[in-house]
Amino acid sequence: MKPRMLTPGPTPVPEETLLDLARPVFYHRSAQMKQVLADVLDDLRYVFCTKNLVLPLTCSGTGGMEAAVVNCFAPGRKVLCAHAGRWGERWRNLCRAFGIEAVSVTAPYGQAVRPEQLAAAVAEHPDAAGVCATLSETATGVRHDIEAFGRITAPTPMLLLVDAISGLGVIPCRTDAWGVDVCVTGSQKALMLPPGLAFVSVSERAWTRIDANPPARTFYFDLKKYRDKLLDHETPFTPANTLLRALRLNLKRLRTEGIENVWARHARMAAAARAGMRALGLEIFAAQPADGLTVARVPEGLDGVALLSKLEKNYGIKLAGGQDVLKGKIIRLGHMGYIDQFDVLAALSGLELVLLEMGHGVEPGAGVAAAQRVLAEQVTGLTAAV
Amino acid sequence: MKPRMLTPGPTPVPEETLLDLARPVFYHRSAQMKQVLADVLDDLRYVFCTKNLVLPLTCSGTGGMEAAVVNCFAPGRKVLCAHAGRWGERWRNLCRAFGIEAVSVTAPYGQAVRPEQLAAAVAEHPDAAGVCATLSETATGVRHDIEAFGRITAPTPMLLLVDAISGLGVIPCRTDAWGVDVCVTGSQKALMLPPGLAFVSVSERAWTRIDANPPARTFYFDLKKYRDKLLDHETPFTPANTLLRALRLNLKRLRTEGIENVWARHARMAAAARAGMRALGLEIFAAQPADGLTVARVPEGLDGVALLSKLEKNYGIKLAGGQDVLKGKIIRLGHMGYIDQFDVLAALSGLELVLLEMGHGVEPGAGVAAAQRVLAEQVTGLTAAV
Repeated sequence: MKPRMLTPGPTPVPEETLLDLARPVFYHRSAQMKQVLADVLDDLRYVFCTKNLVLPLTCSGTGGMEAAVVNCFAPGRKVLCAHAGRWGERWRNLCRAFGIEAVSVTAPYGQAVRPEQLAAAVAEHPDAAGVCATLSETATGVRHDIEAFGRITAPTPMLLLVDAISGLGVIPCRTDAWGVDVCVTGSQKALMLPPGLAFVSVSERAWTRIDANPPARTFYFDLKKYRDKLLDHETPFTPANTLLRALRLNLKRLRTEGIENVWARHARMAAAARAGMRALGLEIFAAQPADGLTVARVPEGLDGVALLSKLEKNYGIKLAGGQDVLKGKIIRLGHMGYIDQFDVLAALSGLELVLLEMGHGVEPGAGVAAAQRVLAEQVTGLTAAV
Repeated sequence: MKPRMLTPGPTPVPEETLLDLARPVFYHRSAQMKQVLADVLDDLRYVFCTKNLVLPLTCSGTGGMEAAVVNCFAPGRKVLCAHAGRWGERWRNLCRAFGIEAVSVTAPYGQAVRPEQLAAAVAEHPDAAGVCATLSETATGVRHDIEAFGRITAPTPMLLLVDAISGLGVIPCRTDAWGVDVCVTGSQKALMLPPGLAFVSVSERAWTRIDANPPARTFYFDLKKYRDKLLDHETPFTPANTLLRALRLNLKRLRTEGIENVWARHARMAAAARAGMRALGLEIFAAQPADGLTVARVPEGLDGVALLSKLEKNYGIKLAGGQDVLKGKIIRLGHMGYIDQFDVLAALSGLELVLLEMGHGVEPGAGVAAAQRVLAEQVTGLTAAV
């Protein structure tokens, strides 16, 4: 059986990048490493839409978020955490772990925190040191309006920290233009690598804050150490250097395509996925969906865990289920990075077959036809425009 | 030119493991991942010589050391740091970064901290919460007598934390038998993987201490989170799962050879390397050498940086130089992991050619012949014994 992984991370790695990962390990204090870092730092700026340094850390995305929190906010400060899902809650939990007061600004799972809510919280807590938010809430498939959040925080001294782990390189994320002070992503989503690296961009005003803060109780995640070394294209600690070398290929791929085309590609896939899901009689869970994944409710009376298990066992198609309280209640179809529209079609086809097998009334062909109509509209539109 | 990397980490990855690293990425919350973790945890226990859980963290070795410090020692406590090089000093720096008082017990670079020194410090500071030490000081090539250190700490309430990053899987490290409470290593040394993972074993008495400590100001490095998840063969954060999958192959390799045979193999290579270096007229820098690397002084009047550069440029042989104050003054020949005695012979041959070219008087063939005599003695000895 041919395996197809359409999870919202880790995502498939392009074949030529997989081969690059099989190349011999190289010394990490060398001219070769400096060149890798020079290339990667330049292309990361492009993908992040920032002129600032993007720091690669060897850790998961949570490590990148921890680095952001511990460097930007001194213990005892107050931070507003806009969250509407498991990953947004991670900001809150991180703040608490470091003795920072986290004020929650929330929305129910499946909905997004509205900019008006954040504006009200900012007005109510003028002493807050910053705002933490999530571009794409991977647990629910919701997109937050980070651009609007940035318009709220920019005129204040509050730093805006954004978890863009499943959003960056998928949907628009104009780090500098939107006033995002710290933007975090990971290697295993749109950057199309195995897990193992996080990336953290830091704005000038965030550096000013970091430099003014009392020394952070951290060592491995001390962003100043990374800044000082990266300016010479070195790293403070042994990096996952084969991942960084392979990242070059993926960043070149994104840069060649053009970041706005990358966003458009994901928007197209997401529109097709949503149309297909709806035609299968599934309700889209996210009120304001992010384009890196499509989350649908499991129909009443069906066992969501069994559904996904059958899909994998019978057809080799791996989707993700819900986590925590959403376990068994939603399915999450990832379509970011090296997953294309035909992979999405395959997933919809498999999903339909399993739903039929489980007795869920579906018109055979409805899902893939609906998705295909969305894809066709794009072509028709393009043809008409020429 | 055929490249040969004989650095004390990263070390070469076996060819079949490189190919494994090119296999498609897999989902990290899956039955496959549970099986990978089950296998890896079992074999790590074997390599660590411990019955306790060995926690894999996605970070560099320093991250593993930070996890050890921040979980074991509350801020304001006092810790004895036995150090005689850059990596031992990392313990001290880590402690300070977390508000822990670090009392140094030191020896000059090239020498080892003696057990009597540690015993005196332990007697002088009965209020210390623990001792941090380094099995193999990669900066100088020195081995510390961790077994003797353990005899000093075991009867006290002090925890013994050991950086075994370039020592574990190279030289004897009997974690449980020696009373090592927390033992740390990294993926990129004797475990023969690219950098990206650290491994931390934790003794029962260390867990008792960790559980009794006030909640540590950490999130990503909270060892309790790892313990709780690993008991179900899961991880708290997205792990570098392709590295863990590949690690299985390398751990099976070590287990098949037998850990004592692995130690003996490294001892043999190290004896050959030292004999070869001496025959080239080079002084061994380490008074009590570790067997994972051989460190020699650059002869008076020779430029050490130029020497290593020539060796790489002319012969494809990559050794490491000195760091910080030792820069240009020493050369470090790594022979751990997937580097064998014939690679060492190649390095000695190249080194001799470069020394001759730079005008250092050497009897041509002296280095390789001396090394070969050591290797031959082993065979003769074995033959005689049969």
